[in-house]
Amino acid sequence: MWDLYGRFFLTRKTSAILLISCPDRSGLVAAITHFLSEHDGNILDLDQHVDMEENVFFARIEWDLDRFVIPRDQIRERFGVLAQRFRMTWELHFSDQRTRMAVLVSRAAHCLYEILAHHEAGDWPVEIPLVISNHAHLESVVKKHGIDYHHLPVTKGTRKEQESKIAELLDREGIELVALARYMQILTPEFVSRFPNRLVNIHHSFLPSFTGPRPYHRAYSRGVKNIGATAHYVTAELDGGPIIEQDVIRVSHRDSVEEFIRKGKGLEKSVLSRAIWFHLQRKVIVYGNKTMVFE
Amino acid sequence: MWDLYGRFFLTRKTSAILLISCPDRSGLVAAITHFLSEHDGNILDLDQHVDMEENVFFARIEWDLDRFVIPRDQIRERFGVLAQRFRMTWELHFSDQRTRMAVLVSRAAHCLYEILAHHEAGDWPVEIPLVISNHAHLESVVKKHGIDYHHLPVTKGTRKEQESKIAELLDREGIELVALARYMQILTPEFVSRFPNRLVNIHHSFLPSFTGPRPYHRAYSRGVKNIGATAHYVTAELDGGPIIEQDVIRVSHRDSVEEFIRKGKGLEKSVLSRAIWFHLQRKVIVYGNKTMVFE
Amino acid sequence: MWDLYGRFFLTRKTSAILLISCPDRSGLVAAITHFLSEHDGNILDLDQHVDMEENVFFARIEWDLDRFVIPRDQIRERFGVLAQRFRMTWELHFSDQRTRMAVLVSRAAHCLYEILAHHEAGDWPVEIPLVISNHAHLESVVKKHGIDYHHLPVTKGTRKEQESKIAELLDREGIELVALARYMQILTPEFVSRFPNRLVNIHHSFLPSFTGPRPYHRAYSRGVKNIGATAHYVTAELDGGPIIEQDVIRVSHRDSVEEFIRKGKGLEKSVLSRAIWFHLQRKVIVYGNKTMVFE
Amino acid sequence: MWDLYGRFFLTRKTSAILLISCPDRSGLVAAITHFLSEHDGNILDLDQHVDMEENVFFARIEWDLDRFVIPRDQIRERFGVLAQRFRMTWELHFSDQRTRMAVLVSRAAHCLYEILAHHEAGDWPVEIPLVISNHAHLESVVKKHGIDYHHLPVTKGTRKEQESKIAELLDREGIELVALARYMQILTPEFVSRFPNRLVNIHHSFLPSFTGPRPYHRAYSRGVKNIGATAHYVTAELDGGPIIEQDVIRVSHRDSVEEFIRKGKGLEKSVLSRAIWFHLQRKVIVYGNKTMVFE
Repeated sequence: MWDLYGRFFLTRKTSAILLISCPDRSGLVAAITHFLSEHDGNILDLDQHVDMEENVFFARIEWDLDRFVIPRDQIRERFGVLAQRFRMTWELHFSDQRTRMAVLVSRAAHCLYEILAHHEAGDWPVEIPLVISNHAHLESVVKKHGIDYHHLPVTKGTRKEQESKIAELLDREGIELVALARYMQILTPEFVSRFPNRLVNIHHSFLPSFTGPRPYHRAYSRGVKNIGATAHYVTAELDGGPIIEQDVIRVSHRDSVEEFIRKGKGLEKSVLSRAIWFHLQRKVIVYGNKTMVFE
Repeated sequence: MWDLYGRFFLTRKTSAILLISCPDRSGLVAAITHFLSEHDGNILDLDQHVDMEENVFFARIEWDLDRFVIPRDQIRERFGVLAQRFRMTWELHFSDQRTRMAVLVSRAAHCLYEILAHHEAGDWPVEIPLVISNHAHLESVVKKHGIDYHHLPVTKGTRKEQESKIAELLDREGIELVALARYMQILTPEFVSRFPNRLVNIHHSFLPSFTGPRPYHRAYSRGVKNIGATAHYVTAELDGGPIIEQDVIRVSHRDSVEEFIRKGKGLEKSVLSRAIWFHLQRKVIVYGNKTMVFE
Repeated sequence: MWDLYGRFFLTRKTSAILLISCPDRSGLVAAITHFLSEHDGNILDLDQHVDMEENVFFARIEWDLDRFVIPRDQIRERFGVLAQRFRMTWELHFSDQRTRMAVLVSRAAHCLYEILAHHEAGDWPVEIPLVISNHAHLESVVKKHGIDYHHLPVTKGTRKEQESKIAELLDREGIELVALARYMQILTPEFVSRFPNRLVNIHHSFLPSFTGPRPYHRAYSRGVKNIGATAHYVTAELDGGPIIEQDVIRVSHRDSVEEFIRKGKGLEKSVLSRAIWFHLQRKVIVYGNKTMVFE
Repeated sequence: MWDLYGRFFLTRKTSAILLISCPDRSGLVAAITHFLSEHDGNILDLDQHVDMEENVFFARIEWDLDRFVIPRDQIRERFGVLAQRFRMTWELHFSDQRTRMAVLVSRAAHCLYEILAHHEAGDWPVEIPLVISNHAHLESVVKKHGIDYHHLPVTKGTRKEQESKIAELLDREGIELVALARYMQILTPEFVSRFPNRLVNIHHSFLPSFTGPRPYHRAYSRGVKNIGATAHYVTAELDGGPIIEQDVIRVSHRDSVEEFIRKGKGLEKSVLSRAIWFHLQRKVIVYGNKTMVFE
């Protein structure tokens, strides 16, 4: 899957991936696996989970398309019959599809650099046609990578207008995933509702601690012994969306708030990268305000 | 599953657990899940893995016995037919069975205390009829818990004889799992071969670093920045058996070797506890020199 | 410092420990170290920190008493002169003093077991004359260790009365440190103010997340990917006191709330143990609502 | 210290840093701190450590140059008198000096990207005049950043010659620190001995496990449950030099060796970054085959 240069290797076998959630009932797994096996689909990975309280079934199933007798463009229709019977909410993906991703960024550049490095190294099955910022200063950094840079300044009075320009750009470019790489603007509920489970934000705290502004300063004042970072899908509630990934790093009384910020940057980019990776690998199912991450 | 006192609650529904490994082939999961669903077995948890290099299939399946139409004492026979067809290596367990466990200990008591605390708190579905030691001094500690203590001293010349006494005790008490809670004797291959995948040892290093004696002293000399602990099944090769669980903790130049030992103790008991828990929950399949731990 | 059985070894050299905080100014360290060196006190460990924002100096200094020419019982008076000159807040301790500690516990026993194990193993320079609980059921566990057990039930109406009994017991026994080992009662500000920086509580969340009751349930609802535990000195503000130690452990969508609780227990006892150890080793200085922990 | 863009802020106060090691004796700290205080040097940070076994004293002292009465260019000489008296090995640095750093790289680019991102963001007090590689393919990546790229291919027969070209470049450019960012060539002892404690390598294992080639493959074969990365100064012994920083990340049976490599990359770049940061901040003293890292 990786070439000698450590780059993602696209000639690997193509597989199909189903993400499923539905009311749990007996015989579900049997029905799904029977559907695949009767059409010669060799299961590469099957991960399922039942939420006992809600009685909901979740699964991620990946199978080899090599000998699968249903042609790729008919899978959706054929599986749809089964899906309807079990009242499934479902998505179908193929491992050879590259996700079209945009990046939103403000002043802090570390998460953007991280994403550009993964992009340039070919680590991720992703295309990045554009970066959007409310500031101008990262334009040259982005353009060096052959990526369009859109400078869309914003003030309180122009938020809706700016957001509609962003939405237009995302639509026009067929963007499926937006990484908010320390984009320090609060998006309106209207904007957020247009891109459900497609906006991944990195918040620089261990949520639900320190939602909102200046989390490192508040963590410093509270005297915590670890600081954290959390990647989550954006919802209307500020820093309240479904958590995809989070992690912490140790701090001590020796660390100033500037050192919190410095250490935190390393953590933020690593947590955001992992969350994006899970999303790109189609390992995430959102249900209510939670995620299943089939690591 | 836990009562108000935080103790393991045994009146929960009984489930059956299958641990399976066999050559991978198309239709395997479909066949297994069909077997369960046609007998009204509601799958509670299904975790499977395919080793692509070796082409081996592994699975852990847990299902509700409540409405399962095959009587409990006939499951083994009925599933055996399917198992044979797919050339499975398999185990069947029931969630209401308590595992009979023995503890082997030398001088250091911290892992023993940890196990006794879990036992007394009722955290684990386990019975501990006996503790065996090559030293006498922990006898009163163990007897306070109403557990037999067998003091079996050992010297180079008496190893085989001592081990055969141990084996006899284990057999007589129907012991299914032995926790080597810092038992500082090297067991002979003969002894080890009698209890395959049933001896869980805690080694006080991050294996494969520092196999053998005095790992903390050697870690200190090497100037590592983390020390580790590893729980593994014992095989004929010293500290070379399949790893079940391992973890590390940070150290610095400020830490003396005594401090390595002190910090390490906390780590050892936590890693050993997790490994025993995985074993008791039937979450571990051993294949070759590796484990699948279906966390 | 540890004998062959891994127990704390008391015949090691005796040292003196100073914990100091005062307004920062030039020449402070020089004055302190000159005082020690002119009386032949060999510094074993010196750890200092300056809070640049508040302009406050903190230090922990440990020196060998072996050749120190000031007799042990005159150090306090002699150093007092220097301390006054620099307007220091300070404490003097000796490494051969055992701290008298009490444990408060409710129903959950895991933290109590952990403390009793350290006590019985001789790991800690501590004496535990008594355990106090609002429930009766752990009495036999505690008495097995030769420790007094005081069952002091409490209701809303009897809180003040019960607390005054606790305070009386603590005073009578000369208790210097109280471990709240999952003592599930909220102490009144009056009680708390009698024992400043002497009550160490373990809260089962990564503070400041999930203060108050049922943190695991709320963490589960929020869909976090790590759960935490925090040890802190108790103040009048619920779960708001100075944090001594905190840590997290990974969870996933597979973990039920019962599994959060089970995993959390292992974390709680390890975090509480570390905090108690730091306190006993005189490594903690409290300033405002923060701690310096000179690890 | 950081501007609004999160970049390292160079107009902060200048401080001087002393790194000291010498035989331990009474009065050492008093003498050093007296020297500073009598010349109005306000100590910003003092971190000391005594190796009790070897009886060696180590310290890192940072003080404000603002009111320090000894002119900057005379400190070396004046402190030298004291240093000689105590037979110190010592280094003097100033916080406003930028370190000149080179990067050696082979095929894998992730650590190089990480370093270039820190460089471009202005996070580190560093100048990077050149990158050297035994391959040509990263030339355009490096040149985009305005950094010279030297392609120096190497074969068994040309190693000495290639290394002498590298050494010449490093000397000519006044390089003080070389980051081996997954440079997959083994350097000769002759080369290594020219740059003691100035070559920082990242090895993709938790040393001392898996020294030498293909550590991820061997970790995979061994069935470890965590993989690691270690940054160390290069010595004549392969992967045997003084460890500066190391860390681990969890893996499971689900992770293929490709996934080990992918996860490991994130770890490698973070561990290497931390080690470089410690070095640049003059927080590292090497003694024998160990480091003191005054975090």
